[in-house]
Amino acid sequence: MTMTIPAGVQIARDLVGPSIAAAVARLNPAVRPVAEYHLGLADVTGKPVEGGAGKALRPALTLLSARAAGAPAERAVDAAAAVELVHNFSLLHDDIMDGDTERRHRPTAWTVFGIGPAILAGDAMLVLAQDLLLETPPYGVWAARCLSAAVQRLIAGQGCDLEFERRDDVKVAECLDMEADKTAALMACACSIGAIYTGAPAELVLSLAEFGTGAGLAFQLADDMLGIWGTPEVTGKPVGSDLRARKKSMPIVAALTSGTPASEELAALLGQPEQLTEDQVARATWLVEQAGGKDQTEAMAAKALDGAFTALGRAKLPDDVRAELCGIAEFITARQW
Amino acid sequence: MTMTIPAGVQIARDLVGPSIAAAVARLNPAVRPVAEYHLGLADVTGKPVEGGAGKALRPALTLLSARAAGAPAERAVDAAAAVELVHNFSLLHDDIMDGDTERRHRPTAWTVFGIGPAILAGDAMLVLAQDLLLETPPYGVWAARCLSAAVQRLIAGQGCDLEFERRDDVKVAECLDMEADKTAALMACACSIGAIYTGAPAELVLSLAEFGTGAGLAFQLADDMLGIWGTPEVTGKPVGSDLRARKKSMPIVAALTSGTPASEELAALLGQPEQLTEDQVARATWLVEQAGGKDQTEAMAAKALDGAFTALGRAKLPDDVRAELCGIAEFITARQW
Repeated sequence: MTMTIPAGVQIARDLVGPSIAAAVARLNPAVRPVAEYHLGLADVTGKPVEGGAGKALRPALTLLSARAAGAPAERAVDAAAAVELVHNFSLLHDDIMDGDTERRHRPTAWTVFGIGPAILAGDAMLVLAQDLLLETPPYGVWAARCLSAAVQRLIAGQGCDLEFERRDDVKVAECLDMEADKTAALMACACSIGAIYTGAPAELVLSLAEFGTGAGLAFQLADDMLGIWGTPEVTGKPVGSDLRARKKSMPIVAALTSGTPASEELAALLGQPEQLTEDQVARATWLVEQAGGKDQTEAMAAKALDGAFTALGRAKLPDDVRAELCGIAEFITARQW
Repeated sequence: MTMTIPAGVQIARDLVGPSIAAAVARLNPAVRPVAEYHLGLADVTGKPVEGGAGKALRPALTLLSARAAGAPAERAVDAAAAVELVHNFSLLHDDIMDGDTERRHRPTAWTVFGIGPAILAGDAMLVLAQDLLLETPPYGVWAARCLSAAVQRLIAGQGCDLEFERRDDVKVAECLDMEADKTAALMACACSIGAIYTGAPAELVLSLAEFGTGAGLAFQLADDMLGIWGTPEVTGKPVGSDLRARKKSMPIVAALTSGTPASEELAALLGQPEQLTEDQVARATWLVEQAGGKDQTEAMAAKALDGAFTALGRAKLPDDVRAELCGIAEFITARQW
């Protein structure tokens, strides 16, 4: 199934992109080039480049969140920029921790500028995001607290993810918590912070956050599927990359804890110290399926998306905004594998 | 000259320590042990230890800053905790960037827990500091913005410091800017945030910040002197450690840019690729002195401290608070070498 990018995502890019660029331009010259490179605003030499900062999914959700509260999208531009800056802060630091050398088809920032400058640029983007919000009290202060809470969960999720790599007894419930922290929390923030920032009532904010939690979890679970069954054309990575990296993503955890003969063979395969051969990756993929890892993950994703739609159904918001939110949720969870 | 620790520093430790411990206890279990270890609240296994978080100089200044505004010290405890958390966030991340393996006579956090968890724990402490302040609007919001601005300068200073290590043409003015960013900005924040947090008028806030800038710069310059002439008993490091590490601290930059025969010989010595021998360290130390690096740095430190006292002289504040602020400024700039 192929889907076209929702119109709101392109609109968000056009609307929020300049705000992100202006905010980053405030940073000190000692860290600014790293941030601009990471965000796709500049090349290694600092020369401006076209294109820029990623998919703008989160900014699109934030602008819709403001519209859900009856405010024009334009009023939430700084909140959307803050969410995108935090998302990029986490990518920048995660790339260092995970030792990843490529992102968005370019070398990661730490491989180009060094670990020190990359840590600092991430720190600077995090503080900048909070500052953008604090400039417009009183609602900006509530928005900043919403963002802080999301960042703490994001950090906790990444911490658990790192810890899981060293463990072989990860449970499904723990894995679900980790994914809720790592991905769904910031998505819930993106979906509600626009409403907070424009002074919406708590009832609407909570429904939007619940929608974001469900959609974010479904998105992460879909991403987990891509990590095993995604084709290189879609993921930009070799087939079965999460199995090669022995990640504890949901399909793998669900399979390992299924108590089937397939789970035992899978554990033995992933427990060996050597790199997996192509044949072993194929066998492990088959074992994950046999042990029900794929079916369980699909079912969890469907349930999470269902919860998102139910929460949205309860909320009072304009019909066009509801339709656009649903469209984005469907788009981000319907990636091919 | 030996000086006893000012009473206010011990009081701050007793008053602010529990607030820091309570704040850190809120962190997720995935990062909390790293933060508690780094802060000296727990050992590697998570067992609580006596003693705790460093010298508490900054918290002492923040409590005095509240008292300068006529508020009881107790009212600024959370602001003092926030400043100390930010100071420790920066130490934690700097240790990774600088590859330092020892701090406060213990292995650094990244060597114990790994780079990933150490980056995350630093991020978490930074966000926690902001959160502590945002919990008490309206002044907490102003305090949070004061802290953000200090963090951005701290990041810029560390960025320049990293860059200077790779350069051999650093100027005195650049070095002074770097030290103002890296050390004086957070000290200025520590000296004024207690007043901001308790609703003091802008005039007092600005004088206190100016005092902190001067005292902070003098402190850093004194620290630069210790890095060259400090005895191992005082610094815990071998004699001449900054020369061995080819740091671009002020005495070295001042010497290198003095245009004297000594500066040329020093440049040649520090430019050689091999590690310096004991004799070469001794020779380099003598050359820094010959080139006027020590005298110039001492003069700059005296001037900065003078500026601090002048700013304090202009401010309207209780006499006992003024005396205590002066006492701490003298204490932190009168370290032995």
